[in-house]
Amino acid sequence: MQRRTASGIPVDRCYSPANGSPGDSSVAGEAPYTRGIHPRMYLDRLWTMRQFAGFGTPSETNQRFRYLLRQGQTGLSVAFDLPTLMGYDSDHEAAEGEVGKCGVAVSSLADMEDLFDEIRLDAVTTSMTITSSAAILWAMYLVVAERQGADWAGLSGTIQNDILKEYIAQKEYIYPPRPSMRLVADTIEFAARHVPRYNPISISGYHIREAGATAVQELAYTLGAAIAYVEWTLRRGLPVDRFAPRLSFFFDSHNDFFEEIAKFRAARRVWCRLMRDRFGAREPRSLKLRFHAQTAGVSLTAQQPEVNLVRTALQALAAVLGGAQSLHTNALDEAYALPTARAALLALRTQQVIAAETGVTREVDPCGGSYFVERLTDELEVRCFEEIGRLDEMGGMVAAVESGYPQAEIAKSAYGQQRSVEEGEAKIVGVNAHLAKEHRPIETLVIDETAARRQAARLRELRRSRDCAAVARALASVRRAASSTQNLMPPLLDAVRAYATLGEICDALRAELGVYSERPAI
Amino acid sequence: MQRRTASGIPVDRCYSPANGSPGDSSVAGEAPYTRGIHPRMYLDRLWTMRQFAGFGTPSETNQRFRYLLRQGQTGLSVAFDLPTLMGYDSDHEAAEGEVGKCGVAVSSLADMEDLFDEIRLDAVTTSMTITSSAAILWAMYLVVAERQGADWAGLSGTIQNDILKEYIAQKEYIYPPRPSMRLVADTIEFAARHVPRYNPISISGYHIREAGATAVQELAYTLGAAIAYVEWTLRRGLPVDRFAPRLSFFFDSHNDFFEEIAKFRAARRVWCRLMRDRFGAREPRSLKLRFHAQTAGVSLTAQQPEVNLVRTALQALAAVLGGAQSLHTNALDEAYALPTARAALLALRTQQVIAAETGVTREVDPCGGSYFVERLTDELEVRCFEEIGRLDEMGGMVAAVESGYPQAEIAKSAYGQQRSVEEGEAKIVGVNAHLAKEHRPIETLVIDETAARRQAARLRELRRSRDCAAVARALASVRRAASSTQNLMPPLLDAVRAYATLGEICDALRAELGVYSERPAI
Repeated sequence: MQRRTASGIPVDRCYSPANGSPGDSSVAGEAPYTRGIHPRMYLDRLWTMRQFAGFGTPSETNQRFRYLLRQGQTGLSVAFDLPTLMGYDSDHEAAEGEVGKCGVAVSSLADMEDLFDEIRLDAVTTSMTITSSAAILWAMYLVVAERQGADWAGLSGTIQNDILKEYIAQKEYIYPPRPSMRLVADTIEFAARHVPRYNPISISGYHIREAGATAVQELAYTLGAAIAYVEWTLRRGLPVDRFAPRLSFFFDSHNDFFEEIAKFRAARRVWCRLMRDRFGAREPRSLKLRFHAQTAGVSLTAQQPEVNLVRTALQALAAVLGGAQSLHTNALDEAYALPTARAALLALRTQQVIAAETGVTREVDPCGGSYFVERLTDELEVRCFEEIGRLDEMGGMVAAVESGYPQAEIAKSAYGQQRSVEEGEAKIVGVNAHLAKEHRPIETLVIDETAARRQAARLRELRRSRDCAAVARALASVRRAASSTQNLMPPLLDAVRAYATLGEICDALRAELGVYSERPAI
Repeated sequence: MQRRTASGIPVDRCYSPANGSPGDSSVAGEAPYTRGIHPRMYLDRLWTMRQFAGFGTPSETNQRFRYLLRQGQTGLSVAFDLPTLMGYDSDHEAAEGEVGKCGVAVSSLADMEDLFDEIRLDAVTTSMTITSSAAILWAMYLVVAERQGADWAGLSGTIQNDILKEYIAQKEYIYPPRPSMRLVADTIEFAARHVPRYNPISISGYHIREAGATAVQELAYTLGAAIAYVEWTLRRGLPVDRFAPRLSFFFDSHNDFFEEIAKFRAARRVWCRLMRDRFGAREPRSLKLRFHAQTAGVSLTAQQPEVNLVRTALQALAAVLGGAQSLHTNALDEAYALPTARAALLALRTQQVIAAETGVTREVDPCGGSYFVERLTDELEVRCFEEIGRLDEMGGMVAAVESGYPQAEIAKSAYGQQRSVEEGEAKIVGVNAHLAKEHRPIETLVIDETAARRQAARLRELRRSRDCAAVARALASVRRAASSTQNLMPPLLDAVRAYATLGEICDALRAELGVYSERPAI
């Protein structure tokens, strides 16, 4: 039987000079950056240990952030709740039952101020996992920084902001694809001009992979989306080297250990070639693919949850051997609920053990030259370019998404994987192999059910105390800008400063940009 | 600053064709077996998941064995208590407070029968971690098999039996080195003639490494000991290819991920060259180094014990990537006590996740060709041969041990490592980095304090009911054989069949072979 990787790439049983790849002759820090974007990688700077966190009200999450910073975490990563992600205030009827559940509720600048209470925004880097509402939440963040007296030029961090992967996989979109792309281009342009050290986008394969894509699809659709963002931003008249250095990436670190290492290496090589050969970028920073990785949430099991510590440790090691700039390790209880503080701490400790005890940070790309890893890197590169070629033929990723193509391809892969688990060909410990007889419950995080009520009360108070005329003026100017080709960031910043809420601003945009609903699956 | 591996080997920051090693051009299953002893490795057969277990009375341990076999463990591994290891019966005054504590108490054939109750010895493989008393315990095992109706030729398993590492590191010796070596040669010879599928020795670097040796010392002293066992057995007139295929090895899988992978690869290459070039072995099975690995007990911390699951998972992956034939993963609570059933199960699950979910069993030696791993493999090989050269100059490992040389070298390394932790150069999460504020106790295994009393009562009953004259005759014939050059296994088997106890047999041997105490450290 032909053996294949998790992504279906046929592989031999043993690689040697006869059937392996020689590897490219580059070293780390040299194009095409297969071996890493820095010559000394973790010897100069470890990856950022960035644990995604957020729940309840902004002040509850603020406590967790300050706890994690005290435990040695080196960057913040904000999880928002579903209403916030979808542009609804905590007191909107669509928010019912969801406030503070899967992340923190942030409905206005006042909430963002609470979220970062006593945290200097020019002293941390903050990643915000938000996309459809990214421009608005980023505006809130920038205004908090401004009020702390921080210089925008000194801020660093990332907003996820990758709207194409929402249509492809995550399904948390608001507006149709093209108006959404315009908003993304607005943020990239604004960052390039005013917040030059901030990453205005994290082009994300993670959700694509978690939806059941293969490693090749994860690479190709992520880089295909990146091409679209570059093209849309180029139309603003910015030279590629002005904004490309701040495009960042986010990948899954999944189970297939060596395929994942090879995937990260291939991603860097493909990006370098795309930027140099297709877009004529010349600045080395434009050619270097920087990425955050997260271990595979989809691989966690509710059965025997402590075993998830093992899975996560191995996946995290793959991300580190693949040269990640930043890493989130999932907590063992995430198949049940948001992590408890204890589970979140163990997840962080996992990264710290890899960094401190295993010696793997001492050499750059220690797998480089491996007959197997080099061969798999080449294979992933070739397959990724083939798939990008298909997207090109369709007119690029925006058109491909509108036609439903990547969505359908991922559905096919996901179906294949599901079948392979059901048929027992793919084994999952505790699920279809090595089942535990007894089930031993673990403690899980309980979200304070009063969060929604407290958020609603805060919003009522906010609406009562703010300058309503100023809010109305600000919202009107958001609508005017939305209907023009003007960059939306300045009017969004003004609306936020006036304490217009997320929901109000989003409604103004919905009115002008329209809302999207998916066509039936093909 | 020059960066070094955990074993002090200087390393560059990045390896490439310019400073790496090309790797030998062999593939797995071909001499010198750097890449593995089988052409298809885990594709044909996974490593044996062999969790070391034993506590309390034989029937309590029997329950644990049957539990682990039901959970998918594929081999047994017996831990004996200290009195048994040192050749004392459970009711001897030297046994006080130690019966059933760090392993199971076995004082006679009756205990061994209970230990394997309802376990067919020709249907499992059993590793017994016992050395000074190995010949006697193995005799008990063989008699249990005989009484189950099993053919000795069908038995497989291993006795540790590596006495040299006791003088070097573990310090659980009874007789002086040379009489001990004779006993080892007796078992190797007996196995070759009568129990041909059983490994009569597991030549162990594990304890050497745990005592603070470097990877190079672990390799060199283990292989140096192996040379001595081969030389002593050759004097029995057995051709090397008659017994060498059944010499097996046991290594530590420690923290330094790639150094460990390289160590296992180098071990195979060095052994092949030694056997072929020094001993003229021709049989491929004589040239293949087969090894059991155990994750590094010494790396476990009492602080934040769940973090040990992470350490163990990463160390276990190194052992698998290094091509282990058999693996014990430590339980997270082993810094406190013998593992609870729950902790032992999680340790087993760790191996099952690596086997089932990571894809690393799909290719043979996936790190092969890596510039770094190949270079480190070469470096370890060279340094190992240099150290073996030093042992040769001293007249071999037995003379070296008598002079205290390896003991002193290991003490130096251990001191250096301890200093580097104390000075904070080497970091251990929870110990000198990332300390936890609160200490949260975990459940630990409680050994039934009545085990000693129950064992003593059983022994009284045994001594009352057995044929005392037969015991006396059997012990006399053990003493006669001990004072001759006759192989001791046949009289040991007869003594065991007569229900002579471990302590009685051992006393007979002590009277003839003498007892050893260490000279003051040099």
